[in-house]
Amino acid sequence: MTSPIGLHRVLEPRGVLPQAALRLDNASEIGADEVRIAIERLNLDAASFRQLATKHNGDGAAVRAEVLEIIGARGKMQNPVTGSGGMLIGTVEAVGPDSPLGLKVGDKVATLVSLTLTPLSITDGLKRWDGGGEQVPCEGHAILFARSIAAVLPADLDPELALAVMDVCGAPALTARVVAKYDNPTVAVIGGAGKSGSLSLAAAKAAGASRTVGVVPIERERATLQAAGLADAVALADARNPVALADAVSAALGGRAADVTVVCVDVPGCEHGAILSTADGGTVIFFSMATSFAAAALGAEGLAADVTMLVGNGYVPGHAAYALDLLRQVPAVRGLFESRLHHEASRATSGTAD
Amino acid sequence: MTSPIGLHRVLEPRGVLPQAALRLDNASEIGADEVRIAIERLNLDAASFRQLATKHNGDGAAVRAEVLEIIGARGKMQNPVTGSGGMLIGTVEAVGPDSPLGLKVGDKVATLVSLTLTPLSITDGLKRWDGGGEQVPCEGHAILFARSIAAVLPADLDPELALAVMDVCGAPALTARVVAKYDNPTVAVIGGAGKSGSLSLAAAKAAGASRTVGVVPIERERATLQAAGLADAVALADARNPVALADAVSAALGGRAADVTVVCVDVPGCEHGAILSTADGGTVIFFSMATSFAAAALGAEGLAADVTMLVGNGYVPGHAAYALDLLRQVPAVRGLFESRLHHEASRATSGTAD
Ligand SMILES: NC(=O)c1ccc[n+]([C@@H]2O[C@H](COP(=O)([O-])OP(=O)(O)OC[C@H]3O[C@@H](n4cnc5c(N)ncnc54)[C@H](OP(=O)(O)O)[C@@H]3O)[C@@H](O)[C@H]2O)c1
Ligand SMILES: NC(=O)c1ccc[n+]([C@@H]2O[C@H](COP(=O)([O-])OP(=O)(O)OC[C@H]3O[C@@H](n4cnc5c(N)ncnc54)[C@H](OP(=O)(O)O)[C@@H]3O)[C@@H](O)[C@H]2O)c1
Repeated sequence: MTSPIGLHRVLEPRGVLPQAALRLDNASEIGADEVRIAIERLNLDAASFRQLATKHNGDGAAVRAEVLEIIGARGKMQNPVTGSGGMLIGTVEAVGPDSPLGLKVGDKVATLVSLTLTPLSITDGLKRWDGGGEQVPCEGHAILFARSIAAVLPADLDPELALAVMDVCGAPALTARVVAKYDNPTVAVIGGAGKSGSLSLAAAKAAGASRTVGVVPIERERATLQAAGLADAVALADARNPVALADAVSAALGGRAADVTVVCVDVPGCEHGAILSTADGGTVIFFSMATSFAAAALGAEGLAADVTMLVGNGYVPGHAAYALDLLRQVPAVRGLFESRLHHEASRATSGTAD
Repeated sequence: MTSPIGLHRVLEPRGVLPQAALRLDNASEIGADEVRIAIERLNLDAASFRQLATKHNGDGAAVRAEVLEIIGARGKMQNPVTGSGGMLIGTVEAVGPDSPLGLKVGDKVATLVSLTLTPLSITDGLKRWDGGGEQVPCEGHAILFARSIAAVLPADLDPELALAVMDVCGAPALTARVVAKYDNPTVAVIGGAGKSGSLSLAAAKAAGASRTVGVVPIERERATLQAAGLADAVALADARNPVALADAVSAALGGRAADVTVVCVDVPGCEHGAILSTADGGTVIFFSMATSFAAAALGAEGLAADVTMLVGNGYVPGHAAYALDLLRQVPAVRGLFESRLHHEASRATSGTAD
């Protein structure tokens, strides 16, 4: 009997869920409710890729070797430092008779559950990847459980673009849900020119934000986000500096803190600044996988800040369709995504660091 | 000029808030808006004490030496592994002319901001503490900032009891707030026989829960919590085993998952079980300082669980008064607290492990 949440694939330690496992069984034979995917491309989580690239000083071959080693040892892709994974695209290769996912052999799909719980086997040694970017072309297979989520890739969008959107699609959906609970709130998105950040800015506006501010770390991103017109104001600040961040947000919002603050950066140490940037009665949504639980909990207490703090749940029903629709309807979001993908691709080809 | 949030006391690294600092200036001279407390007793965070006791195999002298070393090196008490601190009681010794806290010299107070951001100096080498329990009698001083929170100890309660209640008073206040947003919800409290757990059970009932279940790890606690009558049902399960925990909660709630799940245990690895125990549309409140952000975020995504996950904010306006009132009004809560304190005290005296 296979378990809908994949317990039967956990090799070590026994009894935990696949995400918490040290090692998964990545055997290619599928159970009655499982699906096997022939992989085409992995999309590593931004925080995970950044950690690996930093650790190896941008040496792509070393990054590639470590990713291969992790997948080989664990039967899944989970960065041991950040704890995060990413997602993948591929083609459905086999569908068990009892699978409830509604997929058929030949469907081109993206998995919307994390790589940290997906049994994975790589067969080409990642030879087509130079270790220089988050997108990893590869061959091998992955297994989906009954309670996994996978979306058939839309026919009208480039698969790489669709994958990049789906990877972060939990952020705009949850942002919209939270913003809709307030009356004309002000919204600050930290990391507003990034992938989840730009989608969250568009979602906040669509859900009724009265004023939005996107915070970016460097002048080039300020110019890009300003030109895109996705935020009512764009502020320049290092999110790791709590006082500078709160001052920048407040200056952009006419001297008040934000009702809703969305943390979409991929560096550690942004908890206190996000809390300081949020008004009493407001909500902070932490999407960054580099968020420290203790820093957030103790930070709010230490600042006597009456704010609601949410762990960014990557799953909200309908999240993929919602994010893809935002991309279709807001040309500026599409523009930011395409230029970011283009930038990553050219960086990967030229091999130069950014 | 002193900063209301204590930036002027941060020695390393510059620019971060006191909680994130590696080292604080614990000098006894106070600024115009500061307050100095003569310390009588520290109350170490449960997760922190457990980590230290486990690391040193229950060797009290080694635990004491490490606590002294931490405070000496950092100018504050912050466990480097758990990141957590605790709180303290003492007597107000000096009040700056501009302090907004409303305290006067001679007031007996408890600090409601974490020790992780409170400048602290110990002068008696912790000689009256044997390292065997969370309550640490000591001499020295601590500094409060303008935006700190301290409560004058109530005259009708033993100070040790009041301190233990105030230490966890964020939990019942936030539980009540969340429960009140649902219509007759079912509530599961993981670690229901503990300090924050028993208060949260009482708060859930007071805020309108239709049915509560307290989950405990061992038979002795099951008997205690059942006798206390604080929960409609008591279930026995190890919270680190996700499937066992979810099954126990569901069995106690007539085959359904909980609308609100409150995590009050002090061990790591409870995120997935708490998520699995919660119904779609429900809320998980994580109070445990041993919570992993990534495990919670990726766990919910991996289980396709549409649950709201809250970082337990230790500050809710009026939290101390609310928790003390619950203790006064619900004799069973008081009974559990008193027997837990008694148990800790006798364990400390006898020196035997539990
Ligand atoms: N829980 C979930 O469901 C969920 C969903 C979506 C995303 N995420 C997480 O959210 C994070 C962001 O993902 P992403 O794909 O949107 O990444 P991204 O596209 O790389 O965006 C991150 C943005 O943050 C900016 N940034 C970096 N350091 C900063 C600093 N110190 N101050 C201010 N801004 C800074 C980056 O600027 P530069 O490009 O100039 O460095 C970039 O614009 C990741 O950790 C990801 O795992 C989680
Ligand atoms: N963020 C906040 O504002 C806030 C507020 C309050 C509390 N907290 C945190 O919440 C946690 C609990 O604090 P506390 O003072 O209430 O601690 P406590 O009194 O020691 O209670 C913890 C309870 O969890 C039980 N437990 C331990 N391991 C378990 C397991 N594997 N399965 C099920 N139950 C288990 C314990 O049972 P045994 O006694 O038998 O081990 C105990 O009853 C700490 O991490 C604390 O820092 C945070």
